[in-house]
Amino acid sequence: MGSTKLILVLFCLLLIISSSSAAHKKKMQARKPCKRLVFYFHDIIYNGKNAKNATSAIVSAPAWGNRTLLAGKSHFGDVVVFDDPITLDNNLHSTPIGRAQGFYLYDKKETFTAWLGFSFVFNSTAHKGSINFAGADPLMNKTRDISVIGGTGDFFMARGIATLMTDAFEGEVYFRLCVDIKLYECW
Amino acid sequence: MGSTKLILVLFCLLLIISSSSAAHKKKMQARKPCKRLVFYFHDIIYNGKNAKNATSAIVSAPAWGNRTLLAGKSHFGDVVVFDDPITLDNNLHSTPIGRAQGFYLYDKKETFTAWLGFSFVFNSTAHKGSINFAGADPLMNKTRDISVIGGTGDFFMARGIATLMTDAFEGEVYFRLCVDIKLYECW
Amino acid sequence: MGSTKLILVLFCLLLIISSSSAAHKKKMQARKPCKRLVFYFHDIIYNGKNAKNATSAIVSAPAWGNRTLLAGKSHFGDVVVFDDPITLDNNLHSTPIGRAQGFYLYDKKETFTAWLGFSFVFNSTAHKGSINFAGADPLMNKTRDISVIGGTGDFFMARGIATLMTDAFEGEVYFRLCVDIKLYECW
Repeated sequence: MGSTKLILVLFCLLLIISSSSAAHKKKMQARKPCKRLVFYFHDIIYNGKNAKNATSAIVSAPAWGNRTLLAGKSHFGDVVVFDDPITLDNNLHSTPIGRAQGFYLYDKKETFTAWLGFSFVFNSTAHKGSINFAGADPLMNKTRDISVIGGTGDFFMARGIATLMTDAFEGEVYFRLCVDIKLYECW
Repeated sequence: MGSTKLILVLFCLLLIISSSSAAHKKKMQARKPCKRLVFYFHDIIYNGKNAKNATSAIVSAPAWGNRTLLAGKSHFGDVVVFDDPITLDNNLHSTPIGRAQGFYLYDKKETFTAWLGFSFVFNSTAHKGSINFAGADPLMNKTRDISVIGGTGDFFMARGIATLMTDAFEGEVYFRLCVDIKLYECW
Repeated sequence: MGSTKLILVLFCLLLIISSSSAAHKKKMQARKPCKRLVFYFHDIIYNGKNAKNATSAIVSAPAWGNRTLLAGKSHFGDVVVFDDPITLDNNLHSTPIGRAQGFYLYDKKETFTAWLGFSFVFNSTAHKGSINFAGADPLMNKTRDISVIGGTGDFFMARGIATLMTDAFEGEVYFRLCVDIKLYECW
């Protein structure tokens, strides 16, 4: 990893750390992760015109929605299936080191919140295996915690917390997340 | 919490306890939860006419269904996204202390069973953080157990069992669940 | 279980074991499951003509798909809800000992991969309770590992790994999976 990339990852970490409350930080000091990983992943939603580049698609919508445009009422009821590239830095065009695969759904009418069920799937020399995630993502918050509910291969039986941060978004088509994975159970 | 509310919560607990089998109770005595919480949550399904009050919406349906009426064949294949208020007592109009957010799907043609993936999201002085749930809900049974698969904030790394009980329902639009959350791993 | 059935289960186990890498096997020896279970389950997707026999149905599809035929682009975006019989041997017509209930979704355009969220639900003298699963299923691989994220009843608080193997498929309507469940946390 070049020094520029290292700086980008540190930047993501710093943003996440600086936005934690003091009380939370205090508690976390006593809970040192047994493994820590920082990645970016990139989501490009299919909008009827970007079939080639899209990495995700709306597959369910409420009665007032459709499948090529996120619905009104804060996208409430839209379900999106995704196969997003995972990269070490924030560049969409960097060589992916794995795929983020699963779904998210928007679940509030008044603001943007989501619920996520997905896996990070790795098959490289660096990492083999998968990490499974689930949890609520109130995506207007700077950082959000979801659960690592299990893992396979190199991440056999993992449990922990993943802190998500929206690193960038463009319109309602592209967004990029930074993920700080902290495992507290390692086998 | 006033004495009337206390009685309602106790009533929910009593119903749940009295319907456990003796064998199950015996086993459970040896497994004392490290944390226990009892809540109600309230689901009002969008039916095309109740946009203002609805807290959930059908977003997927089988080929024989639609998105404003639960489908025939025991609603098999309907997927519902929800953002339901959580209350301390069984009154829909009590001040919510959090939100139950996620989805359920009906998964049997011959009778009513569901599969749930959701979170309790809290952001009050009493509780901050989230509890993540997944599991099968054979909802014609008086009580049903699902898994607590993780938690964040005050519920960091939680695992346990949540016992669901249908406390009330009106037609196919409103239903109210009582949830008895028992955590057996607390950090 | 008759000797023919025993041979079939052993056959499934042998296939799974023989396809593990030597390195993986070595690691696994140090991690002996506290409980191990092998089952088959059977999925028959509704295609508009098999309402009587179907055990599952497409409930969501991308903009380019529909609900009676798995979509193009490797079924990307199709969501299937299922209630599949679980059997001890590979015979669809054997007496089911439980039901596999939940959903899977196809999440890659270039090849067949899925994400699963489901439960095994048992209510017999042999097993009472449920096992909850989640994880990525790259179904072109001979074997795939997903996570056991929790359990109830006889499987109270279970955690572990389930190895899936496609045992047979016919067109895009019927497929049969062999599942080797290894629990590493038993209560």
